[in-house]
Amino acid sequence: MFHDEKNDILFGRGATDDKGPILGWLNVIEAHNKLGWELPVNLVVCFEGMEESGSLGLDELVAKEANNYFKNVDQCTISDNYWLGTTKPVLTYGLRGCNYYQIIIEGPGADLHSGIFGGIIAEPMTDLVKVMSTLVDTKGKIQIPGVYDMVAPLTEREDQLYDAIDFSLGELNAASGSETSLHDNKKDILKHRWRYPSLSLHGIEGAFSGAGAKTVIPAKVVGKFSIRTVPNIDSKKLDELVFKHINEEFAKLQSPNKFKVELIHDGNYWVSDPFNESFTAASKATQDVWNVVPDFTREGGSIPITLTFEKELGVDVLLLPMGRGDDGAHSINEKLDVSNYINGCKTLGGYLHYFSKA
Amino acid sequence: MFHDEKNDILFGRGATDDKGPILGWLNVIEAHNKLGWELPVNLVVCFEGMEESGSLGLDELVAKEANNYFKNVDQCTISDNYWLGTTKPVLTYGLRGCNYYQIIIEGPGADLHSGIFGGIIAEPMTDLVKVMSTLVDTKGKIQIPGVYDMVAPLTEREDQLYDAIDFSLGELNAASGSETSLHDNKKDILKHRWRYPSLSLHGIEGAFSGAGAKTVIPAKVVGKFSIRTVPNIDSKKLDELVFKHINEEFAKLQSPNKFKVELIHDGNYWVSDPFNESFTAASKATQDVWNVVPDFTREGGSIPITLTFEKELGVDVLLLPMGRGDDGAHSINEKLDVSNYINGCKTLGGYLHYFSKA
Repeated sequence: MFHDEKNDILFGRGATDDKGPILGWLNVIEAHNKLGWELPVNLVVCFEGMEESGSLGLDELVAKEANNYFKNVDQCTISDNYWLGTTKPVLTYGLRGCNYYQIIIEGPGADLHSGIFGGIIAEPMTDLVKVMSTLVDTKGKIQIPGVYDMVAPLTEREDQLYDAIDFSLGELNAASGSETSLHDNKKDILKHRWRYPSLSLHGIEGAFSGAGAKTVIPAKVVGKFSIRTVPNIDSKKLDELVFKHINEEFAKLQSPNKFKVELIHDGNYWVSDPFNESFTAASKATQDVWNVVPDFTREGGSIPITLTFEKELGVDVLLLPMGRGDDGAHSINEKLDVSNYINGCKTLGGYLHYFSKA
Repeated sequence: MFHDEKNDILFGRGATDDKGPILGWLNVIEAHNKLGWELPVNLVVCFEGMEESGSLGLDELVAKEANNYFKNVDQCTISDNYWLGTTKPVLTYGLRGCNYYQIIIEGPGADLHSGIFGGIIAEPMTDLVKVMSTLVDTKGKIQIPGVYDMVAPLTEREDQLYDAIDFSLGELNAASGSETSLHDNKKDILKHRWRYPSLSLHGIEGAFSGAGAKTVIPAKVVGKFSIRTVPNIDSKKLDELVFKHINEEFAKLQSPNKFKVELIHDGNYWVSDPFNESFTAASKATQDVWNVVPDFTREGGSIPITLTFEKELGVDVLLLPMGRGDDGAHSINEKLDVSNYINGCKTLGGYLHYFSKA
């Protein structure tokens, strides 16, 4: 880890994701030891450093140790996320899930020459593009009937949570490197990132994907897309709606080609109660350290282990971050501001004390 | 070249495309020399062996030598194609052209994570798939207004040419390795292969094209498609119709993404008069050798040099093949039946004699 003393920033692979937060918890324990203080809670720790490589074996370990090492745990806290922006601390209470699908269309036995077969063969690419074009509109609205019926209604209390959040359209534009936002105000942007589903078309396997001009008729094409899921979308019910819609759209084409749609993988959304004891304790600690009420945020992506802890231990989970939104997580120049590191340690310690009094 | 004596077939790279036909013309000259006969016509020969590598420099050479080496040539004959099937000789009088286009749609400055940006960014893939889905229907009918208005009407005389041609739906199914033909009878299949335009969607550059499930929002995608052109489609006018249609379809989307459509390359169709002196001479020679009236065929693909000779020398071109449709041109086990080789040589020689008397 390199300390840029001029700007008071720590640089290094994994500085913010997740070396800093891991050391933060160790610092809290060390400080209590040196001061001769009892920790205010019984702390059961789980240090794991391969989240970005799929946390192989962790799910099984948590399940196996639920009634041993993790027995009687009351609350789970994970420090593996970041602030939304660069100036205001956050507490994270939700993550979207992701169901990933593929549409497989097969025609001829091998790729064909479009000069010889164009116009006389039903082309799988034509079918696939037609079907994929029915999934989502250019405003980002999912066109598969029934999906939005499952989305939890927005309550007034939840709506108000978005008011205070420190975020702007300008920040989205800066992050995307464009002015192609589908929404023009903070609240709509955040709601569509966090609490509404979205559908992205990722690409096509089997078709020509190089530069230049290849006159091929691809024999077998596989269209990939995924849906980000939110409360209260039932994953299995979503699959059914997706399959039904795509089967109907393909049937309309009256194509002689072979067709299949399947789920590649799914992962459920997670959402917690931002008003529970744990979040309240973390909020108080944040106010003590940073002199500001933290934003209550969700994430659009997923941290799958969150759900595992919640489910296997039967406890609430809090995501308590240390770094900033511009730390460049996963990049070669990952950073962690020293102020975030020091104040982050203080927040973790304060959180334990407030939680013990709740 | 390996001679399979049991089946009397020559095997070897380029056996039919194009070593056999090249040697065939040399054999004709050698036979006349050995017999002490004058060739019945003044023969100007051009041997070129890199058609499959783009015939680099040949266009320029033909243009440069049009009034020198090729001066006063009356007729051009090329042996670079094959029979339609395996039993009946053909003479080829037409080739489709090919205009190749790409649609470029750009949104964010870099590829984005669909968890974080899905639902809040206008995705280029969504736009592209919508636009590509408007180009052709699943029956192979081009949906760009005005294209079919340019197609030459089918005359009764041309229609009758298809009656005699030796071809079947079964042969198409065998060639495509499927039962996905868009037409159920010989004449419709051949007309759509040879005399009607077709549009193929080849693929997308820039999107996810691998196996598995990558949750990317591609920042820039390039859709590729081509239109096979036929008489009397004007290539420039076709470009205008394509650009107009695609611009209108993109405008309908009201997308904030950047958009461009462009021609990558074009090559005109070619068609000759199958009733002219050259085709008549070749037909007589074929009848003498094979005891059957040849089929008059076109090809769905293109042999670009055909147009160059026609244009630069100002002469008619005849495509006079030697091999069969199942020779596996371009494959590692390319073949040429000895009967086709011997009878092919005879046909080339006979053609020169009949042509000299026309």
